[in-house]
Amino acid sequence: MRPLITLTTDFGLSDPYVAAMKGVILGISPDAHVIDISHGVRPQRVLHATFITQSAWPYFPDGALHVAVVDPGVGTDRRALALVTPRGCFVGPDNGALSAALPDGARPRDGDNVAPVPLPGGYRAFTIANPRYLQQPVSATFHGRDVFAPAAAHLSMGLSPHELGEPVDHVLAFPPLRARRRHDGSLEARVIHIDRFGNIVTDARAADLPDGAVAVELAGESVPGLVRTYVGASGLVALVGSSGYLEVAQPDESAANSLAVEIGDPVLVRRR
Amino acid sequence: MRPLITLTTDFGLSDPYVAAMKGVILGISPDAHVIDISHGVRPQRVLHATFITQSAWPYFPDGALHVAVVDPGVGTDRRALALVTPRGCFVGPDNGALSAALPDGARPRDGDNVAPVPLPGGYRAFTIANPRYLQQPVSATFHGRDVFAPAAAHLSMGLSPHELGEPVDHVLAFPPLRARRRHDGSLEARVIHIDRFGNIVTDARAADLPDGAVAVELAGESVPGLVRTYVGASGLVALVGSSGYLEVAQPDESAANSLAVEIGDPVLVRRR
Amino acid sequence: MRPLITLTTDFGLSDPYVAAMKGVILGISPDAHVIDISHGVRPQRVLHATFITQSAWPYFPDGALHVAVVDPGVGTDRRALALVTPRGCFVGPDNGALSAALPDGARPRDGDNVAPVPLPGGYRAFTIANPRYLQQPVSATFHGRDVFAPAAAHLSMGLSPHELGEPVDHVLAFPPLRARRRHDGSLEARVIHIDRFGNIVTDARAADLPDGAVAVELAGESVPGLVRTYVGASGLVALVGSSGYLEVAQPDESAANSLAVEIGDPVLVRRR
Repeated sequence: MRPLITLTTDFGLSDPYVAAMKGVILGISPDAHVIDISHGVRPQRVLHATFITQSAWPYFPDGALHVAVVDPGVGTDRRALALVTPRGCFVGPDNGALSAALPDGARPRDGDNVAPVPLPGGYRAFTIANPRYLQQPVSATFHGRDVFAPAAAHLSMGLSPHELGEPVDHVLAFPPLRARRRHDGSLEARVIHIDRFGNIVTDARAADLPDGAVAVELAGESVPGLVRTYVGASGLVALVGSSGYLEVAQPDESAANSLAVEIGDPVLVRRR
Repeated sequence: MRPLITLTTDFGLSDPYVAAMKGVILGISPDAHVIDISHGVRPQRVLHATFITQSAWPYFPDGALHVAVVDPGVGTDRRALALVTPRGCFVGPDNGALSAALPDGARPRDGDNVAPVPLPGGYRAFTIANPRYLQQPVSATFHGRDVFAPAAAHLSMGLSPHELGEPVDHVLAFPPLRARRRHDGSLEARVIHIDRFGNIVTDARAADLPDGAVAVELAGESVPGLVRTYVGASGLVALVGSSGYLEVAQPDESAANSLAVEIGDPVLVRRR
Repeated sequence: MRPLITLTTDFGLSDPYVAAMKGVILGISPDAHVIDISHGVRPQRVLHATFITQSAWPYFPDGALHVAVVDPGVGTDRRALALVTPRGCFVGPDNGALSAALPDGARPRDGDNVAPVPLPGGYRAFTIANPRYLQQPVSATFHGRDVFAPAAAHLSMGLSPHELGEPVDHVLAFPPLRARRRHDGSLEARVIHIDRFGNIVTDARAADLPDGAVAVELAGESVPGLVRTYVGASGLVALVGSSGYLEVAQPDESAANSLAVEIGDPVLVRRR
């Protein structure tokens, strides 16, 4: 079977950075299938990368290698990791970028920031440190090319991950993207993504929504919900999108533009 | 021979949508070559997608699978189709997105909207409905991932298209992108695309242009034509572009910005 | 080994142009790995393309084919070339777009413009003219699709480059991207690229920097340097980036926006 390597970064597609990573990968693993998940992560927003990767990687076949490089701490002593899971291997900086590889139950329970968590059963992690598997010389500012790409490529060729460095028993992870439920059953949510259509994706999960009719309050508006599809509505609508999260959309318009909301803005979901 | 699958959507490249489609495809058809035609179709503009696909798919080898997902009606009862042609198979919603697969003569003659047309000889079409070949559960909002990607992937592995659903004898199609000729020989054209250089592509075809010198009137300007290339001119020029359509360009500038035109704007081409 | 073909253009990714090139390539070389370096070169800025390609192609394995199409002179009598080097083959218009294939010592010494240079030992070049290896009919405005893509694809299948056309002993090349050193040891540099993070890349090379502390003067500001990474600084910083050039960056902000600089703007690097 052909090696399959996905890439998620905040590098964009106009700069030579992603191509340099692919060149390094194909020099080591000539038959690899290298697939872009997205290079449009908001610059240096690690949490945003976790939403993007969690919305895509589960659709890839087991055994794929997923490289996620949003790396504001490049060149410091933050660790570089390979995280081996039952469904694939994740490669990236130890700054929360690998959170989407972990099941919710293994991630921190609360808060907005990364915290160290022990690896759940069946998961292993290793530092990427063995100079033999890095692109030499290793730059101080571009570990995507010099550390993560070659490590993933070597793994795709069958390298045993413990050859990369030292075993690790904790990794940094963000809490799951999941709105906080209040005593009255309403959800304190926030905006986690805005897509090309201007759909506003929140961290309110379908399973957590109050039963029955809801009102979604954001940017001073109250949007009644839920509808099942974008079709046939006019004005703002609320629905569960394809990633399993509550979205606010506006057919034929950008809801995000209409409401002038941004990632991180608060959203309240309550029974109507 | 490796399966070859092209993708045309309005999903952009920053969101996780295209990658989820590719993950589904590669899980079913691991050796497929998946090539992006464009994900920059104007949001929900099906007619725009037909221009993009018709400008690219004929350059792919016969037997390729072409997936076109611009799908404002997702989640309604609009049909999902696989359209088998002598040169390849086209997969997408039955909303006109597959128009570029049909020869001009098989498409509606007039008007701005889709209309049902019978399939020409040598063409077959089937609904995509067999749950066995869909990504389960099928979402209400993302059939690119759950319906069209898996159907194309299974076809690329040799699935017989009639396994996907029921045979269909009509599909919805747009009239050909072709300016209307008036009695005096002039062409009532319109803008169908604006490219990265700001070149304004119209639906006036080379073969339909009045003989000899022409004037292209749009946005209150009259541009004399034709020149053969973009080179050596200053100001606005008119020429036949690489897709066989009349374009208005401005060397070193964006003609579209200079003239403030948009897709759909009227253009008149008359003898000078 | 699978053929590997990279593409660098100013076509963007929304238009059908890049896909048409890929279709032509895969029709000739069905197993080719086609990798985008960038399609975000500034429109018609050949020199910008040379920065992009030189930052990426050396990371690809030897033997790759590198296609670079920034081609404001398409349709004139500028030559189309295949340049065979010890590390790979470069295909593109003879307008300087192939400069990055040549070692610095073989390029013109001074000036801002392309000049003809003889090929160094071990390099060969041929015109691309044999109609047998072109996409017919050859358009006047899109040689990426009709000339360069098919030529590269045939080469990737083992075609001997002398089959493409006539041998050539000079090619047009830009001087190396390298700031001019003044008598006092300071560097007269300029901005050659602005990346997605707003980092300002100059043509001052690490090896040419004055010893010790420097000041980087641009847009009326003086930025002290060097730091080793982007991390931990606030305000503007100067560092050597991953391409080996001096950059001015601003952690968490776009330095290019803050300073309102553009490609081509002057930069002075002097001892502090």
